[in-house]
Amino acid sequence: MWDSGTGAFQLPEWMIQFADQKQEFNKRPTKIGRRSLSRSISQSSTDSYSSAASYTDSSDDETSPRDKQQKNSKGSSDFCVKNIKQAEFGRREIEIAEQEMPALMALRKRAQGEKPLAGAKIVGCTHITAQTAVLMETLGALGAQCRWAACNIYSTLNEVAAALAESGFPVFAWKGESEDDFWWCIDRCVNVEGWQPNMILDDGGDLTHWIYKKYPNMFKKIKGIVEESVTGVHRLYQLSKAGKLCVPAMNVNDSVTKQKFDNLYCCRESILDGLKRTTDMMFGGKQVVVCGYGEVGKGCCAALKAMGSIVYVTEIDPICALQACMDGFRLVKLNEVIRQVDIVITCTGNKNVVTREHLDRMKNSCIVCNMGHSNTEIDVASLRTPELTWERVRSQVDHVIWPDGKRIVLLAEGRLLNLSCSTVPTFVLSITATTQALALIELYNAPEGRYKQDVYLLPKKMDEYVASLHLPTFDAHLTELTDEQAKYLGLNKNGPFKPNYYRY
Amino acid sequence: MWDSGTGAFQLPEWMIQFADQKQEFNKRPTKIGRRSLSRSISQSSTDSYSSAASYTDSSDDETSPRDKQQKNSKGSSDFCVKNIKQAEFGRREIEIAEQEMPALMALRKRAQGEKPLAGAKIVGCTHITAQTAVLMETLGALGAQCRWAACNIYSTLNEVAAALAESGFPVFAWKGESEDDFWWCIDRCVNVEGWQPNMILDDGGDLTHWIYKKYPNMFKKIKGIVEESVTGVHRLYQLSKAGKLCVPAMNVNDSVTKQKFDNLYCCRESILDGLKRTTDMMFGGKQVVVCGYGEVGKGCCAALKAMGSIVYVTEIDPICALQACMDGFRLVKLNEVIRQVDIVITCTGNKNVVTREHLDRMKNSCIVCNMGHSNTEIDVASLRTPELTWERVRSQVDHVIWPDGKRIVLLAEGRLLNLSCSTVPTFVLSITATTQALALIELYNAPEGRYKQDVYLLPKKMDEYVASLHLPTFDAHLTELTDEQAKYLGLNKNGPFKPNYYRY
Amino acid sequence: MWDSGTGAFQLPEWMIQFADQKQEFNKRPTKIGRRSLSRSISQSSTDSYSSAASYTDSSDDETSPRDKQQKNSKGSSDFCVKNIKQAEFGRREIEIAEQEMPALMALRKRAQGEKPLAGAKIVGCTHITAQTAVLMETLGALGAQCRWAACNIYSTLNEVAAALAESGFPVFAWKGESEDDFWWCIDRCVNVEGWQPNMILDDGGDLTHWIYKKYPNMFKKIKGIVEESVTGVHRLYQLSKAGKLCVPAMNVNDSVTKQKFDNLYCCRESILDGLKRTTDMMFGGKQVVVCGYGEVGKGCCAALKAMGSIVYVTEIDPICALQACMDGFRLVKLNEVIRQVDIVITCTGNKNVVTREHLDRMKNSCIVCNMGHSNTEIDVASLRTPELTWERVRSQVDHVIWPDGKRIVLLAEGRLLNLSCSTVPTFVLSITATTQALALIELYNAPEGRYKQDVYLLPKKMDEYVASLHLPTFDAHLTELTDEQAKYLGLNKNGPFKPNYYRY
Amino acid sequence: MWDSGTGAFQLPEWMIQFADQKQEFNKRPTKIGRRSLSRSISQSSTDSYSSAASYTDSSDDETSPRDKQQKNSKGSSDFCVKNIKQAEFGRREIEIAEQEMPALMALRKRAQGEKPLAGAKIVGCTHITAQTAVLMETLGALGAQCRWAACNIYSTLNEVAAALAESGFPVFAWKGESEDDFWWCIDRCVNVEGWQPNMILDDGGDLTHWIYKKYPNMFKKIKGIVEESVTGVHRLYQLSKAGKLCVPAMNVNDSVTKQKFDNLYCCRESILDGLKRTTDMMFGGKQVVVCGYGEVGKGCCAALKAMGSIVYVTEIDPICALQACMDGFRLVKLNEVIRQVDIVITCTGNKNVVTREHLDRMKNSCIVCNMGHSNTEIDVASLRTPELTWERVRSQVDHVIWPDGKRIVLLAEGRLLNLSCSTVPTFVLSITATTQALALIELYNAPEGRYKQDVYLLPKKMDEYVASLHLPTFDAHLTELTDEQAKYLGLNKNGPFKPNYYRY
Repeated sequence: MWDSGTGAFQLPEWMIQFADQKQEFNKRPTKIGRRSLSRSISQSSTDSYSSAASYTDSSDDETSPRDKQQKNSKGSSDFCVKNIKQAEFGRREIEIAEQEMPALMALRKRAQGEKPLAGAKIVGCTHITAQTAVLMETLGALGAQCRWAACNIYSTLNEVAAALAESGFPVFAWKGESEDDFWWCIDRCVNVEGWQPNMILDDGGDLTHWIYKKYPNMFKKIKGIVEESVTGVHRLYQLSKAGKLCVPAMNVNDSVTKQKFDNLYCCRESILDGLKRTTDMMFGGKQVVVCGYGEVGKGCCAALKAMGSIVYVTEIDPICALQACMDGFRLVKLNEVIRQVDIVITCTGNKNVVTREHLDRMKNSCIVCNMGHSNTEIDVASLRTPELTWERVRSQVDHVIWPDGKRIVLLAEGRLLNLSCSTVPTFVLSITATTQALALIELYNAPEGRYKQDVYLLPKKMDEYVASLHLPTFDAHLTELTDEQAKYLGLNKNGPFKPNYYRY
Repeated sequence: MWDSGTGAFQLPEWMIQFADQKQEFNKRPTKIGRRSLSRSISQSSTDSYSSAASYTDSSDDETSPRDKQQKNSKGSSDFCVKNIKQAEFGRREIEIAEQEMPALMALRKRAQGEKPLAGAKIVGCTHITAQTAVLMETLGALGAQCRWAACNIYSTLNEVAAALAESGFPVFAWKGESEDDFWWCIDRCVNVEGWQPNMILDDGGDLTHWIYKKYPNMFKKIKGIVEESVTGVHRLYQLSKAGKLCVPAMNVNDSVTKQKFDNLYCCRESILDGLKRTTDMMFGGKQVVVCGYGEVGKGCCAALKAMGSIVYVTEIDPICALQACMDGFRLVKLNEVIRQVDIVITCTGNKNVVTREHLDRMKNSCIVCNMGHSNTEIDVASLRTPELTWERVRSQVDHVIWPDGKRIVLLAEGRLLNLSCSTVPTFVLSITATTQALALIELYNAPEGRYKQDVYLLPKKMDEYVASLHLPTFDAHLTELTDEQAKYLGLNKNGPFKPNYYRY
Repeated sequence: MWDSGTGAFQLPEWMIQFADQKQEFNKRPTKIGRRSLSRSISQSSTDSYSSAASYTDSSDDETSPRDKQQKNSKGSSDFCVKNIKQAEFGRREIEIAEQEMPALMALRKRAQGEKPLAGAKIVGCTHITAQTAVLMETLGALGAQCRWAACNIYSTLNEVAAALAESGFPVFAWKGESEDDFWWCIDRCVNVEGWQPNMILDDGGDLTHWIYKKYPNMFKKIKGIVEESVTGVHRLYQLSKAGKLCVPAMNVNDSVTKQKFDNLYCCRESILDGLKRTTDMMFGGKQVVVCGYGEVGKGCCAALKAMGSIVYVTEIDPICALQACMDGFRLVKLNEVIRQVDIVITCTGNKNVVTREHLDRMKNSCIVCNMGHSNTEIDVASLRTPELTWERVRSQVDHVIWPDGKRIVLLAEGRLLNLSCSTVPTFVLSITATTQALALIELYNAPEGRYKQDVYLLPKKMDEYVASLHLPTFDAHLTELTDEQAKYLGLNKNGPFKPNYYRY
Repeated sequence: MWDSGTGAFQLPEWMIQFADQKQEFNKRPTKIGRRSLSRSISQSSTDSYSSAASYTDSSDDETSPRDKQQKNSKGSSDFCVKNIKQAEFGRREIEIAEQEMPALMALRKRAQGEKPLAGAKIVGCTHITAQTAVLMETLGALGAQCRWAACNIYSTLNEVAAALAESGFPVFAWKGESEDDFWWCIDRCVNVEGWQPNMILDDGGDLTHWIYKKYPNMFKKIKGIVEESVTGVHRLYQLSKAGKLCVPAMNVNDSVTKQKFDNLYCCRESILDGLKRTTDMMFGGKQVVVCGYGEVGKGCCAALKAMGSIVYVTEIDPICALQACMDGFRLVKLNEVIRQVDIVITCTGNKNVVTREHLDRMKNSCIVCNMGHSNTEIDVASLRTPELTWERVRSQVDHVIWPDGKRIVLLAEGRLLNLSCSTVPTFVLSITATTQALALIELYNAPEGRYKQDVYLLPKKMDEYVASLHLPTFDAHLTELTDEQAKYLGLNKNGPFKPNYYRY
């Protein structure tokens, strides 16, 4: 459905498939009838989101929210959620999240005087969680009007949506939307009498696509798009290359701070968490092979080494390979160690890194999981053969049993362990949400001409600002340059402090 | 003396001062008479090089090499070294270095068939050490003719120079050259009848400058310049900006691999080494503040933390500051901890990071040292006041004594600890030398038009190649992409494997 | 109920209270009527056991097992379990456990020739879990006859008990026994016509106590007692001191290997696991204070430091304090850091380490938990005051809210985090079970006179043997002494290898 | 010469050979004439001590101190040192050492009121260094009179001896004593008119032996012996077993604090230091095998792992082996990895751990060194064969060259790397010296009957006191038990805090 343009420019296959790490979902059998729609909504939107928090179950209420008449306590009915009465529970969740999102709260405080988003009319399409709610209410505090839909049909937390609706946000989202619901919700955000958006906050590109397709004239008033996901960013670059991007767009996915937290820092912890929650295994003394030594691989290796595992690394890139060596890991080919390791972890972004042949050679009880991307790294399909027996021993844990009795422990069916079997800390989501808020402010306030119809990275100064807003959490005290030092270094005292190519 | 052009372009002060990390030298009192020459040779060329190896002392031989008649065993006298008879000792040093420079040895092997530098006439100006000798002999094996001078008047290892001369390399260098000798040697390399260089390998820019000044026509035949030092690279960028650069130049200083080894990996080890050799202190339990959390700071912090020190970090850049937090270091202002720490280490690249006021407040026996750059970070000058007593307790170790008896232990008078009080492992120099060799090959063989009259970074593929040549040292086995995987990733199976902005 | 003897000997209070780490349970409101029995069964026996595995719920079956008529497939009815039909599910659990208990499986193999427990009649009273089942079936394979009861009224896994009964073990245990049931089950194990135990395996001392009280004559045939828990061991030492111990007893709780795994290695992992599962927090950059630097504290500190937390330590013992310093932790008094830390962890074995005053001064969102022992370390009782609001936000997670809105996050109501909110890896239980098996073998086969009527530690050689049986799990290859070396060291080639006071 | 008694009791060979770690010395070719004396002084006394500090060389002064007439400034001539005029230089060394020996300085302060050694007449025989001087002057401040000789003929620092003599200590020692000098000096300490020692502080047992042999009656007045070395302690145990020990003796070698610092903490740093100073190698990525995982091995492994080396471990003891596994090291037999490793380090206390066969199979440039004990671990003798060439490339560094050109880098000829090629930090010596001082105080003040004619370990409370005196160095704040807590734990508030078998 998404006209991705000429194709003259050769893009790597993985980038097209690459799901944003935050959008790892379980493919679920979809209802009959949906299949007939050819690629009607983006892949990520139909996958289910695995949330660690368990909420009140409303599954017995079978009425579609679209058929309900609901009003919030102020009498407004400009929203569509599962059950407005769940607002109170959702509000508590939001309040808890607020405590771990200090940067947005700081932005709110600073905005008491000036309202950098006064006049902004933001239409958003993201996962609807407590953290998103903190973002939305921050945008509101900064002066913006917001209308919001979900970027995924399963990920909405109904209670949070209710709480937002109760406090006056036009939210159109519930858990378990049909595909028709999905687009209906988006349309309700955009197609309003007497209100036209001037900013887009998108996660996956479906909202942007819908406006392109249905209301192209709206772009005349739109000052910019902020996009968070790998998929959505890729689409924007395609549009740009095809000369079809008609407003500036901000790629917040590739900000330094966001990247480090999404990958290195977050995965350093979630590899341990994901393995423990699924297998209760002990790390000490275990032999582990980690495929790929990028940021994610570096995080996994550091954590496991610290816990007393013996870690081997595979790499294709000699520079990363040399880094692995200097960090104390033996660099091997997978075949060299596959018979001896207790755990295989993939973090390559590649496909078929672990093949059926590897799986055949693993020893009994070997654990196999994926921290990389999507579900391509382990060739799980090759395990769906008659001679192998699958046994589900726990949620997210399958034993695949060979005819000779050998068992392989496959986690999350090869999907992302960190998202399926662990949780993303609010602090990491805070980094992302703050980056989004600052990108919106930047685009909205940028003087005419600073940004063309192109895709931009967040200015380094803003990236530094995101970081600085998170320092108080750690009671961290930044040093300020003296005038003399700033002159000596040829820097502005307020940053940016590094050249663009700086590697951190 | 170096006409650095317009000055219209505002450059940071530190870049101009910034001495290449490999060129940290002890300022020595220069002989009378030299002072009269205003800025006649580059700063780095007159500083002394602190070498760990102790060699046979030839200081009692007072005759200037320029006045000697020497021949090597094949009868050639196209060289000028201290004493050709020291060749054997130098040869052994070269052989030992060869064992730790596997990449260059591998290049020699691959060159047995093809000679990628056949026809190349390289004039070089670098430190003359065993490692340089391995580089020169490798260039020879690859087909090049070389003529060489020293880039520093103190750093030449006479025995190595003799060994090179003995095996037929026209080398013009000795330890303790006068300034006049310095330029005379360079001139002897360049100004030869019947031989004209077509490639320049420079370290500091003096050779390049000399040719610009004396033999500008030579550039017509020159295919390119390879420059290693921060200073030299800066000069090239200035030339380029002034439109005066008339051949392509390769900045090998900023290659990924070289940077990581020069800074992170090397300093992680040399901070411990430098502190131990000078003070015999114990690291366990010590409180340390590290100023600056760039690559060098990261290396220092990791090493000291691992040895049981309690490490505090100061930073001006909020992104690096957040990294310090996530790595487990308290981020403070120097003032907060200055009274309690046992060691202060500067790694900022900035000036006056440690001021007299800080020094006044330090506790008794506090150790102060610099791992950053040059000698600007600690305000050592402020300690040269009458009320303070200096006591030299060991080579490179001064006690500065306050009137109340408090002693501060100042290392290397505030110059770079890692170069003054530790040694650079041959393996690190191997990375640099290989990068230089590949840059020469690339420039020499590049098809017309690939490189303009500008300053270039080494192509990422070459950087990856440098890394790959060093993997066998670690018995590291790289994985190869399958065709299918390469297609999936949109990559060439032989690299480059990462986009240019990749942060490693 | 347990006549602990004279009391003339002054024992520390904590030893009496100290529950074995494996016996940390949730106190549950007990049914009316039980309270009337004064100390009728040991504390540990009435606490509930928190198991990670979720099993089929049989709670709707209200009939007491004592009133049921059940037979296993071989026609035997010499057992009493919840539901013999659950045997198959239990068998699978046992099979999975077998895979991680290599040492016991190895013992079985070695026992195929000789039967070191042939003739042994073992009566056991332990938690009845899959791991215990592996132990029991191993004892059987070694030649022993076993009869078994549960040492805790809540911890029995009914399916496992069924599986054991199905394969012919006389097991008397179910989840949710009443106190009367508890003693009835024990009695059914002991009081059998035509069968009399000659070995006791106890966990907590209730079985031993019962025999002492009801069947003292049985001790004439009993060759020894093996006791695993701190509580039970303490009782034995008391008996011994009172001159009332009439058979040899083996204290397996204090074996080197068991201690290291129960404390250092296990807690190093479970502190992270417990915190993640309850709070989803991020460790990086967090400030943590760990009270106590014994084995447990050492494990917690090492793990958190490795994950990027900033860790402070409190200690009362100067030697442990110095160790903390050398390992890189600031040693503080709790008051010094209580206002700034994000997490407080107690590992002291002491009481009221965290007082209400401390809790009043903690900052908002501070997490408080106990890894030490029992539930005495945090003064939780002091939080049960009217001005504080308790809010249960998740299982095992309470927010305690101050009048000004400050929230403290209290985990497991101050009980052991590692047992309440994490799981004990099977590998750790394997160490314990193997130690028990070897202790039984040793006592059963010891020549007359080797052991008197006293409490013994497992001989070091046996401890070494436990370790050696677990090495194959790690594919670890032990070196053997040559004859010459053994002579040089004055050692037997088969161990023991260290003097008794060796500290490991 | 030392009549070690019956021999009926079988002692391990290594204990007899085992040189105290602080007494590792280079065997030097001794002058002709000395050989004729059969075992006339203890082995350790003739080995040379490798000191890092370089002092003024007095070697050109050929007159024997015994033939000189010297007086200190107060007119005393009751001493015999090389040159009393060097006192000032020695005093500065002592003052520097004082700054890192806070515990002794604290003892001096506390002793201003009471003099716990008032009346003590101590005769000592130890290495004479700045640290020993701080100890002696502390003993003086505590009220003792001291007379001192050197326990080694090479290790005396003449300047320090001069400083001590200048301040009135009867010191009899110089660097380069002959064997006759050695005993003469000891005799001069003991055999004084009007003065008879009542305490002995010995290091190696030679002083004790001399008194036993020459002045057995002196023991009537002697209250006790404090012995620091493994060798000396062994001799005392032999005496005790033979029933010949006629006064109480304190074994300070095996105190917890001293052991941890001498082995784990000290070696963790000195392995890196020793390797760097000798080879300038890079640790990152190197493959290392460490033989033995006791305290020393644990320290070496931790340090190298932290620096990015890949570490393998060999062990004979399954418990230590399991510890290595849990700490993340592959446990191998030496043969499995000998062909691939870059460094071999022995820490076993055993002999011939590295054999000629191993050496034959090592790869080119492999570094071999010993951190364990004495010089037995590597079979260096097996390398003294005609087909191998030895090349001394630096002090303490030999290349052993095979006929095919392979070179092995042997450090310190197989003697202890940490002592030969690194220095022992003053802080570590401070722990030892404080332990000695407290042992003297304890023995001197013990009530009649507390100590019999046997060898004792320092009471745990004293060991804790040594630790507590060193805490202020780290600004470490110990927590005190409340009365209630002390009662709960059954402890005295002032310690001891642990049972004797506690493993730390």
